[in-house]
Amino acid sequence: MTNAPSWFNEQVDYSGSSIGFRVTKKLHEEQSAFQKIEIWETTDWGNLMVLDGCIMLTSRDNFLYHEMMAHPALFSHSNPKRVVVIGGGDCGTLREVLRHREVESAVQVEIDERVTRMAEQYFPELCEANNDPRAQLLFDDGIAYMRDAAAESIDVIIVDSTDPVGPAEGLFNEAFYQTCYKALRPGGILVQQSEPPLTQLALIKSMRQLMRQVGFAAVRTIPFPQPAYPTGWWSCTMARKGADLSGFRERGAYSKPFATRYYSADIHKAAMILPEFLREALGE
Amino acid sequence: MTNAPSWFNEQVDYSGSSIGFRVTKKLHEEQSAFQKIEIWETTDWGNLMVLDGCIMLTSRDNFLYHEMMAHPALFSHSNPKRVVVIGGGDCGTLREVLRHREVESAVQVEIDERVTRMAEQYFPELCEANNDPRAQLLFDDGIAYMRDAAAESIDVIIVDSTDPVGPAEGLFNEAFYQTCYKALRPGGILVQQSEPPLTQLALIKSMRQLMRQVGFAAVRTIPFPQPAYPTGWWSCTMARKGADLSGFRERGAYSKPFATRYYSADIHKAAMILPEFLREALGE
Repeated sequence: MTNAPSWFNEQVDYSGSSIGFRVTKKLHEEQSAFQKIEIWETTDWGNLMVLDGCIMLTSRDNFLYHEMMAHPALFSHSNPKRVVVIGGGDCGTLREVLRHREVESAVQVEIDERVTRMAEQYFPELCEANNDPRAQLLFDDGIAYMRDAAAESIDVIIVDSTDPVGPAEGLFNEAFYQTCYKALRPGGILVQQSEPPLTQLALIKSMRQLMRQVGFAAVRTIPFPQPAYPTGWWSCTMARKGADLSGFRERGAYSKPFATRYYSADIHKAAMILPEFLREALGE
Repeated sequence: MTNAPSWFNEQVDYSGSSIGFRVTKKLHEEQSAFQKIEIWETTDWGNLMVLDGCIMLTSRDNFLYHEMMAHPALFSHSNPKRVVVIGGGDCGTLREVLRHREVESAVQVEIDERVTRMAEQYFPELCEANNDPRAQLLFDDGIAYMRDAAAESIDVIIVDSTDPVGPAEGLFNEAFYQTCYKALRPGGILVQQSEPPLTQLALIKSMRQLMRQVGFAAVRTIPFPQPAYPTGWWSCTMARKGADLSGFRERGAYSKPFATRYYSADIHKAAMILPEFLREALGE
């Protein structure tokens, strides 16, 4: 609780690497029903949210992740009306989703209400769309939500979760993907954060295999930079029901009526190009 | 000097962020005439080289940097015969340069011979082209080398240096760029590592402005992932003498007779697409 800078450091077991930020003070700490939540003030990255010791986001670089979790999937769908975000308690993905006028309803299903309350206080810019009449914020178990979802009722499901250990483990298996597949309308898209491409290739391959196994017709993995996450290089994986993922609403993306800082129609095309080692490993 | 894992951590003042790797032992440490050199064994990233506390490379991820420092520039040149690498003592960039059959001579001008000797011992795969008859390894001051270089004698200059402080400071100013401009043949290309796009935008803008100021006709900045460097997201900036940088030898890149792990002709095109915030900031 001092103003002399020190460092918050996350040592990541699975990657054997660490990421840290210079911090000036701890703004908040609590143990919620699900996890330990910390908010730090940093010298260069705005505020920092940490869950159970894992860096979740900073004010400065979260736009990379949130834009890439939302826009490639939404512009790949021909008419995304009903969107569900599983996790995503900081509301940043929800905000990006609601930039799309086609979206009629966006439901965020976050298990830990305290994460959203902290985001409202320390990352208010991410919550600016929370009062949009199209938004619905539920604080519930995303796995149960998808299990109970009506068949063919959703256009885009965005799984914006923590790592596949602990509470989020059940979001990376066949049973969960089955519920997503069933709940999606034909042409519907599931997109899920899929960890660092350089170090978690085995996980990405397993996710893609399970997605195909439950019936998805096409799967694509998109890498993007994300300084606050292990290795600084992250990915999301999209799966589509009954249609391919080779194109997207290019005209819509070129003339989108909202500003972005990373995503653009050209970046969409560029992001679909995989580095050689990934292309070979994923058989694309 | 223990085998129980600990962490090597680099706290980066200019970015307010840190990067680290889990290490098992220090393989070597010395104070050369120029800097403190450390070599560590890591649990997940092979060997790690550190100069004056700054992480230079790991066995696992250096391919990203070395490929992107060499191939975009060499495939952007119509016929790169004479290449000079300033810095680059680990020899990884030199190796990538020598994969190009068109190259008749590649001179590496590294100020600290001990860096190369350490690379030979701890990163032998990067040094496998050092005995190529086209290669010349000089241990000398790159600034002086460029000052004394014959006019219009070089096709591609690759500045593969440390950060723009200390020994490398003189590689980021107008006087140095002037010597590079003079030494390049018409159509020649200068490419320089240009730090993290998210946090060092001011430096990138200044480099580009100085490059244009000394006469370069076209300037392009290319971002790429690099886990071992601050923010995990790095860039290089290319400048061309008397010609633009809008195209490249696409057919040559598609049919290149050597394997790469990141670079490809498609990645070349994708890498030229800038994220929105960079495109706006750089006025492209």
